[in-house]
Amino acid sequence: MRYVGFPRIFNFIMLYELAIIGGGPAGVAAGIYAARKKIKAVLLTKDFIGQIGKTSEVDNYPGFAGISGLALAERFKQHLKKFAIEIKEGSEVVLLAKKERQFLIKLETGEELKAKAVLVASGAKPRSLGVPGEKELTGRGVSYCPICDAPFFKDKRVAVVGGGNAGFEAALDLARYAQHILLFEEKERVRADELLQELAAKEKKIEVYLGVKVKKIEGATKVTAIIYEDLKTKKIFQLPIEGIFVQIGSSPSVSFLKGLVDFNQRGEIKINSRGETSCPGIFAAGDVTDGQWKQVVIAAGEGAKAALAAYEYLQKEKSNLKNTSKKTKIKNKK
Amino acid sequence: MRYVGFPRIFNFIMLYELAIIGGGPAGVAAGIYAARKKIKAVLLTKDFIGQIGKTSEVDNYPGFAGISGLALAERFKQHLKKFAIEIKEGSEVVLLAKKERQFLIKLETGEELKAKAVLVASGAKPRSLGVPGEKELTGRGVSYCPICDAPFFKDKRVAVVGGGNAGFEAALDLARYAQHILLFEEKERVRADELLQELAAKEKKIEVYLGVKVKKIEGATKVTAIIYEDLKTKKIFQLPIEGIFVQIGSSPSVSFLKGLVDFNQRGEIKINSRGETSCPGIFAAGDVTDGQWKQVVIAAGEGAKAALAAYEYLQKEKSNLKNTSKKTKIKNKK
Repeated sequence: MRYVGFPRIFNFIMLYELAIIGGGPAGVAAGIYAARKKIKAVLLTKDFIGQIGKTSEVDNYPGFAGISGLALAERFKQHLKKFAIEIKEGSEVVLLAKKERQFLIKLETGEELKAKAVLVASGAKPRSLGVPGEKELTGRGVSYCPICDAPFFKDKRVAVVGGGNAGFEAALDLARYAQHILLFEEKERVRADELLQELAAKEKKIEVYLGVKVKKIEGATKVTAIIYEDLKTKKIFQLPIEGIFVQIGSSPSVSFLKGLVDFNQRGEIKINSRGETSCPGIFAAGDVTDGQWKQVVIAAGEGAKAALAAYEYLQKEKSNLKNTSKKTKIKNKK
Repeated sequence: MRYVGFPRIFNFIMLYELAIIGGGPAGVAAGIYAARKKIKAVLLTKDFIGQIGKTSEVDNYPGFAGISGLALAERFKQHLKKFAIEIKEGSEVVLLAKKERQFLIKLETGEELKAKAVLVASGAKPRSLGVPGEKELTGRGVSYCPICDAPFFKDKRVAVVGGGNAGFEAALDLARYAQHILLFEEKERVRADELLQELAAKEKKIEVYLGVKVKKIEGATKVTAIIYEDLKTKKIFQLPIEGIFVQIGSSPSVSFLKGLVDFNQRGEIKINSRGETSCPGIFAAGDVTDGQWKQVVIAAGEGAKAALAAYEYLQKEKSNLKNTSKKTKIKNKK
């Protein structure tokens, strides 16, 4: 028995009006707004945890005074699921390509789908130091996620690299467990919120090193020491530590759309105030974009905007299509 | 007995780093972010209810699936109050003036205060039709707030003016009470979310009139009829109604800052993606600005951004001041 043409069924590629890539605050907000506009949308995400789920406490998303990142991520997910939107969870997007007026999206699993418009809200991933020992000792003392790993460093001596909010938050998280926390910052001053600085100042366990650069992380099977340079004196120091938390920002997750849109120097997608990118039909929002401040409420607001802009784009595309077919009809009459 | 110079004490004007004008989502988000940056800020607002408090249900602020506008406004207020920020509630700002590098703010009550920077988040107020009978019958059948007044129209025949989201939401709100709802829209098509349109289509009580313009609201002591024009046929019609809800958008609350910043044609404050206005030191966010979409989550995101931009401005002003005094010292040495 032969099924002639049967395999073609497996080649059927679903066409959506809008594909939203990412399940963080920007993606979820976009999903809610797209669903309310009755756009035939799909949201593609590895998970709904992302960076926010790794934050111990979020205290600056208006309406939720002091909620765990994980709990807020869950609230976002449940809110989205209330609406009629297809969700594909568990697989990352590996390729986005433009084909005439449509986009082709390929997932890790090999699955393909098409969309008339795409909203990129794929967020960012923690940036690494790029020093010897870092890669080798990741998971063996080197961590990028204080909320995940802080409890493992009870009564230990740990370093935090980065003097921004993330670094100070990590130091404060660690203060509940570790015995001593050394915070390293390359610049001569820290950039964290004054409030966080004050809280850290009150915590005797936390010691801040300014104008120092991490050169190497040492250890055979586990982290045992940090080698750093005093940038003023050029002297090299070694300090024994048992853990190191790297909190020096993040890099945008954009590997799947190389060449399709314009990026800034940090590799972030350039957008205008409507969430439009340099490529018509591609919109972007949240930490993946060139916005200066990476914040939950800002990402959510931008996600809503980008979805509304995508809705207008789709409406215009529809009327363009209608106009084109009208013209064809007139031609036929001649 | 004479107190020489005593009255001067009463002339003492408090100087803040930042004055936030408005207690809606934009103002509250700005307040939270300013407080976390340890800015000496004051938030000035008539109340924390505003437009959001008059919405029956908010279902598109991520994290809160279906919350009453009043409850969400209360959550925002309580979240803000958690932080160290001064709040002056109950009085509107009547004047904002620039004096060298500072701003003078005058409240309804006559109270004055000064600030180094100002963040305008004063929102918008419902727009009126401007037809005969409207003003006279406001509160006597003419309403701008369905959630406040819908229950008064049980089993009555009411009109809603406006085919946007607000108009459809009003019609759906009213459907739970009124006997018959006539929705009037000037354009030939409505602009509301498809979802709202579908919901309204299912509701037999709601009848939509397209391409019609309200000309007059009639009634001696209470609304009794609506006079409208069919814009195609130019014919004038009269229909008996007992109530009318005007839902044709809103106009920005900017009367206190005439001339200080640039506005667009709708009278909204022009801002860039950092919430900066044309006047250094004045920032703006939310419905008072020229952003296309007036949404709670968008306003909150913009409020956070504007506060962070204001923080950077204040930091720069501080270092400018230091540089100026340094220069003076050098001069003195010569």
